[in-house]
Amino acid sequence: MRYAFAKRVRHLQSSAVRDILKVVSKGNVISFAGGLPDDDLFPLDGVREAFEKTFETGKKPLQYIETEGYMPLREILVDRMAIKGIDTYTPESLLLTTGSQQAIDLFSRVMFNPGDVILTENPTYLAALQVFESYEANVIPVESDEFGMIEEDLEHKIRKYKPKCIYVVPTFSNPAGKVWSMERRNLLVSLAHKYHVMIFEDDPYGDLQFHSNETYTPIAALDDGTHVLYTSTFSKTVVPALRTGWIAGPHQIIRIMSQAKQANDLHSNSLSQQALFHLCQNFDLDAHINNLITVYRSRMEIMLEELEKAKLPGLTYVVPKGGMFFWIELDEKMNTGDLLNVAVKNGVAYVPGAPFYVGKKVQQNAMRLNFTHSTPDKIKKGMGILTSVIKEQYTKV
Amino acid sequence: MRYAFAKRVRHLQSSAVRDILKVVSKGNVISFAGGLPDDDLFPLDGVREAFEKTFETGKKPLQYIETEGYMPLREILVDRMAIKGIDTYTPESLLLTTGSQQAIDLFSRVMFNPGDVILTENPTYLAALQVFESYEANVIPVESDEFGMIEEDLEHKIRKYKPKCIYVVPTFSNPAGKVWSMERRNLLVSLAHKYHVMIFEDDPYGDLQFHSNETYTPIAALDDGTHVLYTSTFSKTVVPALRTGWIAGPHQIIRIMSQAKQANDLHSNSLSQQALFHLCQNFDLDAHINNLITVYRSRMEIMLEELEKAKLPGLTYVVPKGGMFFWIELDEKMNTGDLLNVAVKNGVAYVPGAPFYVGKKVQQNAMRLNFTHSTPDKIKKGMGILTSVIKEQYTKV
Repeated sequence: MRYAFAKRVRHLQSSAVRDILKVVSKGNVISFAGGLPDDDLFPLDGVREAFEKTFETGKKPLQYIETEGYMPLREILVDRMAIKGIDTYTPESLLLTTGSQQAIDLFSRVMFNPGDVILTENPTYLAALQVFESYEANVIPVESDEFGMIEEDLEHKIRKYKPKCIYVVPTFSNPAGKVWSMERRNLLVSLAHKYHVMIFEDDPYGDLQFHSNETYTPIAALDDGTHVLYTSTFSKTVVPALRTGWIAGPHQIIRIMSQAKQANDLHSNSLSQQALFHLCQNFDLDAHINNLITVYRSRMEIMLEELEKAKLPGLTYVVPKGGMFFWIELDEKMNTGDLLNVAVKNGVAYVPGAPFYVGKKVQQNAMRLNFTHSTPDKIKKGMGILTSVIKEQYTKV
Repeated sequence: MRYAFAKRVRHLQSSAVRDILKVVSKGNVISFAGGLPDDDLFPLDGVREAFEKTFETGKKPLQYIETEGYMPLREILVDRMAIKGIDTYTPESLLLTTGSQQAIDLFSRVMFNPGDVILTENPTYLAALQVFESYEANVIPVESDEFGMIEEDLEHKIRKYKPKCIYVVPTFSNPAGKVWSMERRNLLVSLAHKYHVMIFEDDPYGDLQFHSNETYTPIAALDDGTHVLYTSTFSKTVVPALRTGWIAGPHQIIRIMSQAKQANDLHSNSLSQQALFHLCQNFDLDAHINNLITVYRSRMEIMLEELEKAKLPGLTYVVPKGGMFFWIELDEKMNTGDLLNVAVKNGVAYVPGAPFYVGKKVQQNAMRLNFTHSTPDKIKKGMGILTSVIKEQYTKV
């Protein structure tokens, strides 16, 4: 039988990142490709005790709950956000989701008609682009430098395209590993208010901050609770397998998203939500995050050292101040898409930069390197292979 | 700020069932309204041990996995389906979802353009209707009797509307508690092949079969693997909080649904999937299901007895052969929507039949009664109140 799919299926495609991961995970390749935290650092005992605590309370935690998610965990999250300065949302304005990916999807589902415009950084988070495109939204890139979106181009494009939303990953972005300056954060909020545009702040990495003496105020903390939706997740700070993220925002939008979620999956895994509540109560999550920061920062520094040692021709980068990714740009004549096969054959994988770009201005010479999932030894070995492959290829192009 | 939502939001509405549940759950009302299994019967020890087994295997189960879900659980599900005669699907043609609700949603997302036609029973599962409508599909009801869809009307509507899909809950349906006859099941498959229409078989309750000597072959078992998608869930047989369901079907459709799932939520809670694998290996799930059947059947019989004792004027019903619901129709002049407030004030809740109907032919005199979530004492007391309220109202209309 020939199956007739919906038109929106045209816009669905398997993520390049995940397809590479599938191949790489089967072989003996050192992978800087995925966005995985390190298994060895997972707080197994903390998670195990949190589930045990939940089971000790009896059978009630195994029943259906309301679509919005387990209320005591939403209360804890509101408190944790307040510590970051985000204090305009109530637990009723917070929806627990299956990872922050579902938050992006539900927001898009209730917001975007085909043709609606979303402004994004360029490059930006690949899986968000895929969601926006699956709703046939029109994604327009805004020019950025290392401090965030550039004022002139941002205001110009807001006036020209009348976007419904500006999607940003302002703190340790995926893929570029950048941090927006305070000035650009304030500017974004003031333009959003001036032109009545929503801001969607995607903040999965904000807790993984390498320099404790610096302050990167979330954009949601600069707003009065009317123009910003803020999403984050436990996937990078606790573990991915619980698939627990959240989104906070204006109550009217969260309420409609919650109706969309009811149709989508009724509610997310509620046993995990209850275990995460107990984990936040009984486990020192902040100490654990500090440990992650120490380890991840030292791995980033090893990667940086290897990069500097190799003296790659035409190399540029911004040293990551947190998060999980190192974004590097090679000499202009290099093509990291072409290079990938050679690299994988030699035993190392990364993600080419091209899929993260929107529109026509695609840089073929960039790549995203993950530094959280490999041990120091593997980072050294993998970077040795990668920089050799790059140098060898450079002589040929 | 005034928020401009997507047009599809018009079709979203909070489920009447869940709204009633919210009110009822706060008071001291005996509720026959929800679709909840009984907390007291949850296999807490089995679930707890399954999680403990998972934690014993180390930190790997806490990492991200592939979108399709944990392969060893998919293999077990293929084996369990084969016991029911469904033997055309492979683990690669099976997708683990966040409850079977997400299976309905993902299927709709990849299949339906606005205006595409779906044929359904009437009444049918409310939350499926809400999904179909959120994708602006055109739901057309087919006339049914107690044996399933009626041949003439089914073929007439297939020819007239050229539907993309026929959605059915053939075994202990929600809300009507009916079982399709073998003849009607075979007929549906042959018409699907004749006219190239997909069948979506929603089977959350099939395991809760009260009469072990009878055979209700799943519709998927009558197909060659090309025309039927089959979805079910662990929510009714193990516990709802793990939110683990699955869908099996033609590989080409499952593959596209898996891409849609990647955009939707990357993957479902994988720790629960691994725990369910250990549960299926180490816990006697079939003995547990047999125990559920014994308890639920006896509760249904108590409800039946109370109904018969009350001698309600004009009452009609089909005695459920399994599942969780008793569907009754009162005298034609009764309106169960109007009656609900009176019933709740007197301490008992149910779901009025009207929201389960599609199209113009809505019966106002029906109601759905859940018999799984209340103890025998509460069923007796609740049915006493309910039948008194009905009788009193009958004298007034």
